[in-house]
Amino acid sequence: MASWALLLEYDGSPFIGWQRQRSGLSIQAAVEAAASRLNRGRPVESVVAGRTDAGVHATAQVAQLALAPDYGHDTLRNALNYHLKPYPIVVLKAAPVAQGWHARFSAISRVYCYRILNRGPHPGLLAGRVWHVHRPLDVEAMQTAACQLLGRHDFTSFRAASCQGGSPVRTLDRLEVRREGEIIEIITEARSFLQHQVRNMVGTLKLVGEGRWPPAQVGRILAARDRSAAGPTASPEGLYLTRIDYPVDPFLSAGSLGQSVRVRE
Amino acid sequence: MASWALLLEYDGSPFIGWQRQRSGLSIQAAVEAAASRLNRGRPVESVVAGRTDAGVHATAQVAQLALAPDYGHDTLRNALNYHLKPYPIVVLKAAPVAQGWHARFSAISRVYCYRILNRGPHPGLLAGRVWHVHRPLDVEAMQTAACQLLGRHDFTSFRAASCQGGSPVRTLDRLEVRREGEIIEIITEARSFLQHQVRNMVGTLKLVGEGRWPPAQVGRILAARDRSAAGPTASPEGLYLTRIDYPVDPFLSAGSLGQSVRVRE
Repeated sequence: MASWALLLEYDGSPFIGWQRQRSGLSIQAAVEAAASRLNRGRPVESVVAGRTDAGVHATAQVAQLALAPDYGHDTLRNALNYHLKPYPIVVLKAAPVAQGWHARFSAISRVYCYRILNRGPHPGLLAGRVWHVHRPLDVEAMQTAACQLLGRHDFTSFRAASCQGGSPVRTLDRLEVRREGEIIEIITEARSFLQHQVRNMVGTLKLVGEGRWPPAQVGRILAARDRSAAGPTASPEGLYLTRIDYPVDPFLSAGSLGQSVRVRE
Repeated sequence: MASWALLLEYDGSPFIGWQRQRSGLSIQAAVEAAASRLNRGRPVESVVAGRTDAGVHATAQVAQLALAPDYGHDTLRNALNYHLKPYPIVVLKAAPVAQGWHARFSAISRVYCYRILNRGPHPGLLAGRVWHVHRPLDVEAMQTAACQLLGRHDFTSFRAASCQGGSPVRTLDRLEVRREGEIIEIITEARSFLQHQVRNMVGTLKLVGEGRWPPAQVGRILAARDRSAAGPTASPEGLYLTRIDYPVDPFLSAGSLGQSVRVRE
């Protein structure tokens, strides 16, 4: 058996999230079932770079699983996609990886994009793909607030109660807020995030954007190290996992075709 | 009663098209049912600028219906949206229009955007929103071919057999082909189009893009005035009605909020 890395795009709407659970269909279960069809029906177990929650999307998730080594890259990709056809899950690239490479632990950076539809009427074409906020948001105030979260901090205030990560300290490398018409995008990057950290940061920035909190409040929230000091968790529907970086791109050998569609509309 | 214009955004996927039919749920039926709730349950009939087919989307469809004159613009819009909530149909703007104004006959220009996802793997996040073409398309060849369709011509070769419009002569004001990564967009504008004209033009340009026909073939197809000379009808999933122009914008009084999301990703 060889270890393969998969670059995945999916619409998270119909799933209970990446991780296999008894309560419903997970992306993990769909991908592993497709892989098992290529393994004479024997179970295949996968590892993933970012365990996305129910409703969260990905344009470039990275998963890893063991399969026969004698596939061509495109052959494996196409065979998996054939079995994934009933689901909005697509393998964009497949490439064999070296012994010791790990989809989750070898990753050095993760990028998420959060999309808000900021207008009165609810989403039509973007239903399930954005968080709908009907009050006008002040993007400049949100960006001023966001800058206070950059760098190495104890992010306890933005961490889910159920988070099982060890230390609450993370280093935030990027937190940009930009508007294009009715869409506000919040792009964030870090080596790793705490559970719900991105959605809790967005839920807090939204209150700043609505003028309910001054931008400086975000620094105080961070210092409080208290989840109840921050804003509510933003809806999963607006969250997209858009990039995972490794010291060397595991898909270099898989060619440039099959790039993921960009999230921006 | 007053005559109202509505600016509508919808995801066409779950509908049998704009027009009311016995075979399933139409966008027209959903909009009229919502309006009827504001009319003491009495039926409300609507007129529309562009009767989109099953699966075709709109970011800026214009419909017209008669309702009580004493609504504020936002009140009517919000009330209709409240009743439309179960569906991916949204009223972006509502404004009263003068006697004699007609959503369909007063329109002087219609713009459609057609989106192709041009990559090997099938659509994940964009399932139902694009036409998937897996062979690489030559956008320059497509644009060269497209230019031969500009201007006033007999478009019989690009007209559905079932088309009930009178003359097959139309004036094509714009037909642009552009690529952004894996997405190819074809933008076209005319005072009016024949039935399936946009999808038949796109289906023909796709064959040029694949190298199966030289660009000059499109001029010969046009001259043939024979539907069987042209390419197949492109999938409805990639088609978006994105603008209707009138001599005076009927929504001027409705303010600038509630613009439609742009189609581009």
